[in-house]
Amino acid sequence: MITTGGSEALLFTLMTLCDPGDQVIIPEPFYTNVSSFAHSAMVELVPVTSRLEDAFALPPMKDLEKLINPKTKAILLCSPNNPTGHVYSKEDLERTLQLCKKHDIFLVVDEVYREFCYDGERFTSILTFEEYADRVVCVDSFSKRYSMCGARVGMLVSRNKQFLTDTLKLSQARLCPPDIEQVAAAAALTTDPSYLVEVKKEYESRRNFLVEALEKVEGVKTTKPKGAFYIIAELPVEDAEDFATFLLRDFDLNGETVMLAPAEDFYATKGIGRRQVRIAYVLNKEDLGKAVACLAAGLKAYAERGA
Amino acid sequence: MITTGGSEALLFTLMTLCDPGDQVIIPEPFYTNVSSFAHSAMVELVPVTSRLEDAFALPPMKDLEKLINPKTKAILLCSPNNPTGHVYSKEDLERTLQLCKKHDIFLVVDEVYREFCYDGERFTSILTFEEYADRVVCVDSFSKRYSMCGARVGMLVSRNKQFLTDTLKLSQARLCPPDIEQVAAAAALTTDPSYLVEVKKEYESRRNFLVEALEKVEGVKTTKPKGAFYIIAELPVEDAEDFATFLLRDFDLNGETVMLAPAEDFYATKGIGRRQVRIAYVLNKEDLGKAVACLAAGLKAYAERGA
Repeated sequence: MITTGGSEALLFTLMTLCDPGDQVIIPEPFYTNVSSFAHSAMVELVPVTSRLEDAFALPPMKDLEKLINPKTKAILLCSPNNPTGHVYSKEDLERTLQLCKKHDIFLVVDEVYREFCYDGERFTSILTFEEYADRVVCVDSFSKRYSMCGARVGMLVSRNKQFLTDTLKLSQARLCPPDIEQVAAAAALTTDPSYLVEVKKEYESRRNFLVEALEKVEGVKTTKPKGAFYIIAELPVEDAEDFATFLLRDFDLNGETVMLAPAEDFYATKGIGRRQVRIAYVLNKEDLGKAVACLAAGLKAYAERGA
Repeated sequence: MITTGGSEALLFTLMTLCDPGDQVIIPEPFYTNVSSFAHSAMVELVPVTSRLEDAFALPPMKDLEKLINPKTKAILLCSPNNPTGHVYSKEDLERTLQLCKKHDIFLVVDEVYREFCYDGERFTSILTFEEYADRVVCVDSFSKRYSMCGARVGMLVSRNKQFLTDTLKLSQARLCPPDIEQVAAAAALTTDPSYLVEVKKEYESRRNFLVEALEKVEGVKTTKPKGAFYIIAELPVEDAEDFATFLLRDFDLNGETVMLAPAEDFYATKGIGRRQVRIAYVLNKEDLGKAVACLAAGLKAYAERGA
């Protein structure tokens, strides 16, 4: 079913699977706006922490299982992940599906970055697990695939007929997703696949460039994620938000600075991720290089600011 | 604030002004999808009945006031009205605002049909009442004005800063209304005003044609509404839904039939409006004429079907 962006697909999914007060388990850090959709649907997100030290791998099943209770209606994953770039393996997904089946809950996977997998990593869609098809919901969107952000065309894919019947009611209430942009999206589908091969190659090379550059900056810890176009980096600062504010207000390198996304708000657990930031590598390498140089100089100036 | 159609503007308004279980008073019959938005926001719509015999005028203030209680957060009007075509007068709005002020609640007016007022009727926007500006929310949209249905660009207009701050949070969660269609909407605003003068003239003439044609059909009661492009007609049948089904399944006139919108679902009060249908006069006169002929023949066949 076509939705007004992946955003509406997530909102409709939460509204359909949950009553107010129900719970959905989600690995943190996660895309912050899911919190807002959960608030709108009066659903409680229950975080399970994935860690930079583990390259943000899916936490052990026993950690997820501990969180399941009668109010739990689904586990929500994003793969390739925003904000960590982690790509969940076929085995990860299979194990999670087994857990979902055991407790009779849904597995929702946001796959909007599915084309962007690097190092030969093969993406496994949740839709390929025939055996579990009735408890699977896939969220997708055109905006990342064809750089159509702003055009609000997403979709919900499920083989669960009741789920589709229920979400259809929410769809009918708001009449339709944007018409003109649906036509544009249909046209985008005729794009030659070589386009995505090129785009993927370019992102992979930007990722390599960015990770190498960040690794040279003293005190910065990061991972080399296999998908999407984000990196979580841990900085040698106590409070990344304060540092980000410093960069914007009190610092420049040749009249330029960088704006960082502090990662703390990607975590639902209080106090985690305060030293982390999310960096998107959507710029070209020249700009990425300047940004990392600026970040390095900013870190130095920030450390010396009280001296 | 720009929204994804008038639909989202209505949903955001209900979510912002109300907590779950709160109430909003609305004259019935009303646009059915408001029910769906209210369900989504877990808001209870409390209907006050307007009647065909009164040309669907706003019910007396004392009827509205009786329904106000501590859970009431707003009165919601649509003017010109979908589905009745009624246009609320300046005095109606002023009286309603006084009532809202007395009970410290909001007045929300859906004005998406504001250009379509006939017989020289002057449209009064709720935004013209300066004195009450802090309790007023106006819902608007491009789709009717420029025949852009499908392009999802609407808006919320209010001078209440807290309301705008709160709805902005809902807006930010879903990122943006459709981008390409916002550009189209901005371009539509440069349309020469003579376009709307012509469109209005055409609709007025279609309304006159339709009302005259309907009045000639035996047993049909209707009004001559002063706005929008809808008419509620009462038919000489017990159950308009059953009749509409009959027209689609078991009837044709020269291979054609008409599809009617039974009005019962525009009422929240059970059992009202069963004999009524909503007719939109968006077709050209030739087609409208054929449709009314078909309706008249259908009524005759329906009455004789058991004989």
